Amino acid sequence: MRVEIRFAASKSSDYNVFIDELEEIVLDGKAAIITNETVAKIHLENIKSKIKAKELYEVVVKDGEEYKNLQTIEYILNELFKMKLDRKSTLIAFGGGVVGDMTGFAASVYQRGINFIQVPTTLLAQVDASVGGKTGVNNSFGKNLIGSFYQPRVVYCESEFLKTLPKREFNAGVAEIIKMAVMFDKEFFYWLEDTDLSDDVNLKEAIAKSIKIKADIVAQDEKESGIRAVLNYGHTFAHVIEQETNYREYLHGEAVAFGIVMANELAINLGLLGQDEADKIEKALQFFSLPTRYKIQDIDSFYSSFFLDKKSSNSKITFILPNHIGNFAIRDSITEEMVKNSLKVFSR
Amino acid sequence: MRVEIRFAASKSSDYNVFIDELEEIVLDGKAAIITNETVAKIHLENIKSKIKAKELYEVVVKDGEEYKNLQTIEYILNELFKMKLDRKSTLIAFGGGVVGDMTGFAASVYQRGINFIQVPTTLLAQVDASVGGKTGVNNSFGKNLIGSFYQPRVVYCESEFLKTLPKREFNAGVAEIIKMAVMFDKEFFYWLEDTDLSDDVNLKEAIAKSIKIKADIVAQDEKESGIRAVLNYGHTFAHVIEQETNYREYLHGEAVAFGIVMANELAINLGLLGQDEADKIEKALQFFSLPTRYKIQDIDSFYSSFFLDKKSSNSKITFILPNHIGNFAIRDSITEEMVKNSLKVFSR
Repeated sequence: MRVEIRFAASKSSDYNVFIDELEEIVLDGKAAIITNETVAKIHLENIKSKIKAKELYEVVVKDGEEYKNLQTIEYILNELFKMKLDRKSTLIAFGGGVVGDMTGFAASVYQRGINFIQVPTTLLAQVDASVGGKTGVNNSFGKNLIGSFYQPRVVYCESEFLKTLPKREFNAGVAEIIKMAVMFDKEFFYWLEDTDLSDDVNLKEAIAKSIKIKADIVAQDEKESGIRAVLNYGHTFAHVIEQETNYREYLHGEAVAFGIVMANELAINLGLLGQDEADKIEKALQFFSLPTRYKIQDIDSFYSSFFLDKKSSNSKITFILPNHIGNFAIRDSITEEMVKNSLKVFSR
Repeated sequence: MRVEIRFAASKSSDYNVFIDELEEIVLDGKAAIITNETVAKIHLENIKSKIKAKELYEVVVKDGEEYKNLQTIEYILNELFKMKLDRKSTLIAFGGGVVGDMTGFAASVYQRGINFIQVPTTLLAQVDASVGGKTGVNNSFGKNLIGSFYQPRVVYCESEFLKTLPKREFNAGVAEIIKMAVMFDKEFFYWLEDTDLSDDVNLKEAIAKSIKIKADIVAQDEKESGIRAVLNYGHTFAHVIEQETNYREYLHGEAVAFGIVMANELAINLGLLGQDEADKIEKALQFFSLPTRYKIQDIDSFYSSFFLDKKSSNSKITFILPNHIGNFAIRDSITEEMVKNSLKVFSR
């Protein structure tokens, strides 16, 4: 099965997403693969054999969200300058979401912007991070606070790379698939409940479906002035959890699973979601061994961390909530009291 | 005299340039003025009194091209996060080209992009740097090698700020005006030869004329895939000179003056420019006390530095040359021998 999604994401550029298709990448100019130590060990020779470029280089960075910062960007840029990459060169992001976000950001600022291609090697990156052109790094104030909107030329989603992915990372990717289904597609959610994703055909269908949903949303709202924010379901909470745990304890998808359950609790209290629906969602997450109950130490401090999140415009917090399964609600005037009350369940 | 130029520079945004007009800037959200120590000392209270924002902050950086680097960007970003600027906030670049380039770059990556406004306080920034959306910083490999294309919402060119500008800096700005005239407008060049720019009316006319030329070019080619490169007349040489002298010895406009004379020498040898025309251009530069004869220590090393310049795509150097006064020529296949021969005049 080959799925090709023509993705008119940005006014200035559109691009393709290929699913299960990475025979050969042919590039005119120089190219550099940006990857991390873990992926390099397993797949670097494989990908190198598939890329034809005038000169092909590689930059290998350390593996982990804690290295997703400006220092690593500067390291990558310096390497690219040493290789004398020019404006017609291409970067190839080869790894998970962290590698993709950093490569995209480096590509967007290297000589004021050069081409880049995404070859995501994790489920999370395939279904979510690689599509849509959000790039960036974390800093001490929070996650993805420095970055740009910069679209890749092509995204190749090759399921072969997922075969070596640790189970825990695979499951973290499923969290984003469930997110997409709960927000936009009831049928998809119920299909996911009944379907075995360890079957390759089913998995590819789930990936294709998720990318189509995301592509559709991003095409409507590239810069996230409206509907794109719905993709942040669970993320406002997840970002605080990731900060509190220094990005070390949980994978991004795991933090999102926690966040989804927190958002659901708030949705229940606002009458947007039934307890039975919330239970279904939590059970779906748990089926993939995702953690769902984060222990909040201090509700006040947890709450005040929302305001560092960049989605909080003018000191208002925007919450993305399910409006029953398959629909979303955007709320930016929920009282502090209501939010803190909903969080209480998680502080016991 | 108030000149308003509506500037459709980018597909995604257009903006206005106001000349001699800074009564009040009214902003909805929070705002931060980014400026340097020198400008802050003279004009900060003045500009603050003219800005109405929900909350108004300032970030003062050190003065000088040697601080135009990623470290300063990180410092600025950290300050903005401390101030809790959000996506609806605005940055105001208040200073010369260095402040403008860094503020634009910081604005382009802060939370993936917030608005910014240019209030240039030097002639060079008014006629050139503030218009067109090039942002960025230098690194050890060269000038402006890291950055983005990011357009300001508005540019205010207020001649009041030029009154306190040191003569040397004023003259450096004239180099870019002369550049514009030689490349695009013979009449303008001859007008400049005969006109007293110390007269305020004449100066404003020269500024308006330069901005109009630049706006016209940038509107045709925002990302510099073609004609915009013509604005780099003299700059390929200037960048090497600035690197060799660690950005300390010469102002940018002075380096450009050197570069213009070097480009002219090459143009003469290629039969594009008469010696008499080259003399006229050099005399015009000298009239503003601009240096025109840079002493090259080592032609081979000078030549090899061209290849670090980001305009050199695929190891070819593109030279922008005058094709008589008022017209340009773009050449990317000049032999190494021809270039080095032309440079010999400057190594004696």
